[in-house]
Amino acid sequence: MFDPVEKLKEFIRHASVSTDPKAKAGMQGAQEFVSGLLRSLGFAVDVVPTDLHPLIFAQRGGQPDWPHVVIYGHYDVQPADPLNLWKTPAFEPTLIGNRLYGRGAADNKGPLMTIIAAIARLLEEDPAVPLRLTFLIEGEEEIGSPSFPKFLERYADKLRAADCVFLSDTALPNEQQVVLTCGLRGLALFDVHVTGAKGDLHSGLHGGVLRNPIQALAEILATLHTPEGRVNVPGFYDTVLDVHPWERDELRKLGADEKAYADFLGIDTFYTTPGFTPFESLRFQPTLEFNGIGGGYQGEGTKTVIPSKAFAKISCRLVPNQEPEKIKRLVMDTIRARAPKGVKIDFVDQHKGEPYVVVPPDRSNTPANQPPVLARVFRATHEAVNEVWGRPPLYLREGGSVPIIAEIKRVTGLDSVMMGLFLPEDNLHAPNESFNLDVMRKGIETTYRMFKRLARG
Amino acid sequence: MFDPVEKLKEFIRHASVSTDPKAKAGMQGAQEFVSGLLRSLGFAVDVVPTDLHPLIFAQRGGQPDWPHVVIYGHYDVQPADPLNLWKTPAFEPTLIGNRLYGRGAADNKGPLMTIIAAIARLLEEDPAVPLRLTFLIEGEEEIGSPSFPKFLERYADKLRAADCVFLSDTALPNEQQVVLTCGLRGLALFDVHVTGAKGDLHSGLHGGVLRNPIQALAEILATLHTPEGRVNVPGFYDTVLDVHPWERDELRKLGADEKAYADFLGIDTFYTTPGFTPFESLRFQPTLEFNGIGGGYQGEGTKTVIPSKAFAKISCRLVPNQEPEKIKRLVMDTIRARAPKGVKIDFVDQHKGEPYVVVPPDRSNTPANQPPVLARVFRATHEAVNEVWGRPPLYLREGGSVPIIAEIKRVTGLDSVMMGLFLPEDNLHAPNESFNLDVMRKGIETTYRMFKRLARG
Repeated sequence: MFDPVEKLKEFIRHASVSTDPKAKAGMQGAQEFVSGLLRSLGFAVDVVPTDLHPLIFAQRGGQPDWPHVVIYGHYDVQPADPLNLWKTPAFEPTLIGNRLYGRGAADNKGPLMTIIAAIARLLEEDPAVPLRLTFLIEGEEEIGSPSFPKFLERYADKLRAADCVFLSDTALPNEQQVVLTCGLRGLALFDVHVTGAKGDLHSGLHGGVLRNPIQALAEILATLHTPEGRVNVPGFYDTVLDVHPWERDELRKLGADEKAYADFLGIDTFYTTPGFTPFESLRFQPTLEFNGIGGGYQGEGTKTVIPSKAFAKISCRLVPNQEPEKIKRLVMDTIRARAPKGVKIDFVDQHKGEPYVVVPPDRSNTPANQPPVLARVFRATHEAVNEVWGRPPLYLREGGSVPIIAEIKRVTGLDSVMMGLFLPEDNLHAPNESFNLDVMRKGIETTYRMFKRLARG
Repeated sequence: MFDPVEKLKEFIRHASVSTDPKAKAGMQGAQEFVSGLLRSLGFAVDVVPTDLHPLIFAQRGGQPDWPHVVIYGHYDVQPADPLNLWKTPAFEPTLIGNRLYGRGAADNKGPLMTIIAAIARLLEEDPAVPLRLTFLIEGEEEIGSPSFPKFLERYADKLRAADCVFLSDTALPNEQQVVLTCGLRGLALFDVHVTGAKGDLHSGLHGGVLRNPIQALAEILATLHTPEGRVNVPGFYDTVLDVHPWERDELRKLGADEKAYADFLGIDTFYTTPGFTPFESLRFQPTLEFNGIGGGYQGEGTKTVIPSKAFAKISCRLVPNQEPEKIKRLVMDTIRARAPKGVKIDFVDQHKGEPYVVVPPDRSNTPANQPPVLARVFRATHEAVNEVWGRPPLYLREGGSVPIIAEIKRVTGLDSVMMGLFLPEDNLHAPNESFNLDVMRKGIETTYRMFKRLARG
């Protein structure tokens, strides 16, 4: 008997931090755990080597006329630091109430285990269920999936034979309302390094003659937003997709409460793209964020130094139809143009991801364009959600990014059906990440029913 | 026989980083080493306990009409990080050419050992030399001398009986020219912390609705200077002492080369207080520097987080007659006033030090005001420098800070004669600190001759 919670605990114990070269054992453990699980369900598992972390490609074949769904997920997680802010050990899954705590519980180990559990139940009930299923589970999602494009090119033919992708790596706004995600933001990430003098200097002996690189960096970063909340980079918004009226309607149905959201965040003032509510801003508008900054002495007490260097880590969340490479170039050019004299600017390129949008069948002006199985998966999911949660899903774009969704579309033509399962309070990418086990239970039931309905035709 | 270089090596091996709670052994070792050395020269040594690092108070008494000179120094050093930039181990003294490398070699262990060696020679030659000498060597100079005021109050009567202070904790502009330092900048240090949301947030799920504290911090810091190089804080310059014409003349005699200085720093553009040359700016004008900045993810790769907090470490170098407490208040008030909505501002107060100025006898308009022994020490130093270095010293204010000099003056009335011995290339407060042993040799000879001349009357 497949116990989803015990399996999830086992999965979390593998500290699979893909960005950390010291986490090799955790990465390998997580990969072997998932591979073994899929093998035990009868899948033919290929562990596809890459330059970094292998990808799991697991197939259940069948008749050519059976629907063929690709299930995407990832077995890697974000770093757990700052560790001192965790109330339970980050890699020791801990059940408190109906929540399971641990790094990766919600992103993406819990939602992925939800789908695996649904399929385990389906196959247990009907080992001959007329569905072709392909798992595609990568180990580099949290570092921008560097090996994914090469894999996609190599496996493109196998994937093109499928009908669509199904996954759960997006959010649920609250415990009552499921969202089918119809759009994702893209990403453009890079670091900027500012260098002043050729070495660190004593601020007494040399203070007053040169521009401190921390000052220069602050002066540059301070120009990148308007006081009102727009990204102040020429051309940044040029290709941003207009918001369709049905999208605003759908978002209004969500009935989200701004006051409650501000309380959840612990802020007293929103700072959004002007003309957009907070909920619209984070789904429909791009951002430019500073994810980290560093320079000089950061320890206890003081060190009266003029540092030689300072840096910031910058990420833009992009919406359709912004192009990551073009946006990077715009922001880098702007930074260079605004840098004061006396400092040197260098960039370290990080990863990127295209934004994505899919129009669900009943919202499309051109329904004939929907491939039949994609439309069937959308409808089967709609019905299953309606049955299990007591209300239909909402169709919304989301602020997060799953960059490979756009990449899969570009290379294979496959669109994705994304069913959100993690909640705002799940603390993704932050200390004390957790996953709601009631949501998991309902998610398993929903996914099970969706596939069963799809198999019935 | 007293071997100054071997003694200095031994001194450097004690890793006496006063700001580092883990460096207790190094602090105690350095203190015991200096105390032992002074005892071996016949001084009566008191190790004066404080709340943190003890102070060494060592006396050689004598007749009431003998000149009584207090010698100040410190046995603590700056932290050595970033350690990876050191070419030799920071606390293993390494001789390369005529330079001895190691943390504290120039600040202040080398110059202090220079004076001790001169006195050792003097006492060896003439054990009855008619001088009263008091060593006052603290262990908290690099952290702002927090225990010094309490010590001063307690020992004020003993110190008031002395005539003046002599020390070497200032700079030599080049190997040919000695400077007697007539002024020091003060210090006002504090950290600013900016808090946004109550925890770190996923930049996809929440990006676009709130102001990132790194952005807010950058926006605040960017307002604190004008593009031309002035500190942009109302009232900051209100009490800055005018520069006397003889001070500019003296500085011109130094004949410092701006091009060579820029090359030494590795910059192509100076950024000074408008209206001041770089050399004037760093001696006669105050600064506001960012010594460190931190927030969010600073590791390898990326972490798409909106951090909850960011901070900067700020220090102002102050000139007479700026008051540290008043300047701190002005800067903090300005930061608070300029902080955008949606973030919380907190300050952590660090240490401070008053600026100092003394007018040497031949530059004073009121020579009668100079206490005779202070004037004699100035003149004896002048003559000794002239003999040993082949040219007279210059009388200059310096950009660095020795905050207790102003404190000694305030509490005991004693002025200080400061003979610079470290060179710009000594890398104080930076990796690869070193001390020039030719300068040390000449410094010992000069100090020896100065005291001998003073003893002759």
